[in-house]
Amino acid sequence: MLRISYGLARASLSSWPSLKPRSGPALCGPKSRALWGIRSSSAAAYTTSSSSGGKLLFRQLFEEESYTYTYLLADVSHPDKPAVLIDPVDKTAERDLSLVKELGLKLIYAMNTHVHADHVTGTGLIKMKVPGVKSVISRASNSRADHFIEAGDKICFGDLFLEVRATPGHTLGCVTYVSGDRPGQPQPRMAFTGDALLIRGCGRTDFQGGNSLQLYHSVHSQILTLPKDTLVYPGHDYRGFSVSTVGEEMLYNPRLTKDEETFKKIMENLNLPYPKMIDVAVPANMVCGLQDLSSEAVGAASN
Amino acid sequence: MLRISYGLARASLSSWPSLKPRSGPALCGPKSRALWGIRSSSAAAYTTSSSSGGKLLFRQLFEEESYTYTYLLADVSHPDKPAVLIDPVDKTAERDLSLVKELGLKLIYAMNTHVHADHVTGTGLIKMKVPGVKSVISRASNSRADHFIEAGDKICFGDLFLEVRATPGHTLGCVTYVSGDRPGQPQPRMAFTGDALLIRGCGRTDFQGGNSLQLYHSVHSQILTLPKDTLVYPGHDYRGFSVSTVGEEMLYNPRLTKDEETFKKIMENLNLPYPKMIDVAVPANMVCGLQDLSSEAVGAASN
Repeated sequence: MLRISYGLARASLSSWPSLKPRSGPALCGPKSRALWGIRSSSAAAYTTSSSSGGKLLFRQLFEEESYTYTYLLADVSHPDKPAVLIDPVDKTAERDLSLVKELGLKLIYAMNTHVHADHVTGTGLIKMKVPGVKSVISRASNSRADHFIEAGDKICFGDLFLEVRATPGHTLGCVTYVSGDRPGQPQPRMAFTGDALLIRGCGRTDFQGGNSLQLYHSVHSQILTLPKDTLVYPGHDYRGFSVSTVGEEMLYNPRLTKDEETFKKIMENLNLPYPKMIDVAVPANMVCGLQDLSSEAVGAASN
Repeated sequence: MLRISYGLARASLSSWPSLKPRSGPALCGPKSRALWGIRSSSAAAYTTSSSSGGKLLFRQLFEEESYTYTYLLADVSHPDKPAVLIDPVDKTAERDLSLVKELGLKLIYAMNTHVHADHVTGTGLIKMKVPGVKSVISRASNSRADHFIEAGDKICFGDLFLEVRATPGHTLGCVTYVSGDRPGQPQPRMAFTGDALLIRGCGRTDFQGGNSLQLYHSVHSQILTLPKDTLVYPGHDYRGFSVSTVGEEMLYNPRLTKDEETFKKIMENLNLPYPKMIDVAVPANMVCGLQDLSSEAVGAASN
């Protein structure tokens, strides 16, 4: 089990598959502190006013074929400008890396919220192109990656960090990454919900270990309990929305404002077509997009 | 000529077609003050840390057929939550109005950066659906609208405002709306550049009074002179980018980092196809999207 390595901090007690978030014993471990530094800064983050801590650079990036959002976050107050990508897509990996380079960032993690069924993750390509980048996914996903994260873990980049919340139901290994709740972290908080909570919607629950009641419980206990002004950044949007808030989804999500039984019935009667990419995407994503890449890269992905 | 009405403030001397921005004599006129109020607030804006003034709610919305970005801005610290939409699209007008309603905003202006050639503005539909909303476009566009704006004008909504900068070259009437530079206004500043400056690109200059040298001068004198951390929100993006900064475009825009003559040659040799929507969109947009709507609505659009 990974402990305090490259900015990943883990609580000492495993609460998985419990959904209850844990507080890790340390923001980042000593190794990550040495590597990325623990700094105190008065700079305001890009989307926030912060009294101390990191300065967030944030970009939302869109892949039009699968309507996927990729998120780039970096602490630009840190000398190394360490950065993470959440849910990169293979088809837009070059674009994302070009932006990372132009902005002078040091990409350290290519993270996934879950094993996607509608596109191939860009994680494998990114690892090939940028040696040293580590892939991150939940242990519960049962897929391959450099780092497996669990509920309560903290993923640090510079003086900023993301908390891991377990939000299974769309798939059995879905997580939501939530920006920290300490001074110097972005305010309002930001939740990268993958397909667990979409803007006025949610991911389907009929494949990959999906379970509608589990999703309902995940969203209500792990996401909708966040402060109402928490910004909800989903894994996809199909209608051109870019962001929502916890407060908005509590009021207007047409599925998750219903009671549990009604939600279950809604999800059972969506009559969605078979996911057209699932047979290609899931096998590739189970190895973090390394399926068709070199054996060297695959070897590097073992943990 | 419109003066201090419904939150539009105008400098007393016309500098159009000069590109030089002017400072209006007042932030908002007395009528707008009475209607929307002049308030002092310590609330932080959505994308900013502000010591006083309004609290910005900001949403970027995407229309996938024409790759158009529509922007919703509101001052949610004001009791009326006055809001503006920049560059709404007819096909997504219902979506935008639904969001405005859910967020409890009072839409006051439907604004265009220019007469679009690739989609029909949503302005006309919005005026039909929400009586009282005023259409806004530059006087230099020679189109119809409720309010014609010029360089140096300020468009107020609550305690927030946008400055008008004339940025012709893609069309003869293009403007860029820039958030205010006073305490209580969003920091970093935000520039809604329409098609004058795109992320790593710019609008074509071969139709609608376009002129490449004029565009070059517009962008360099009116946009790239803003603080480097100014957020650039374009009218379109075709590669999934959502935002850039003035500093980034100064370094990496492949066209506008060139000298004037090279830029002119680049623009002369783009070999772009005839704009497929131009024959439908331009006539409709010259009347702010009211072409096919009721005569009553058309009548209401005269100034």
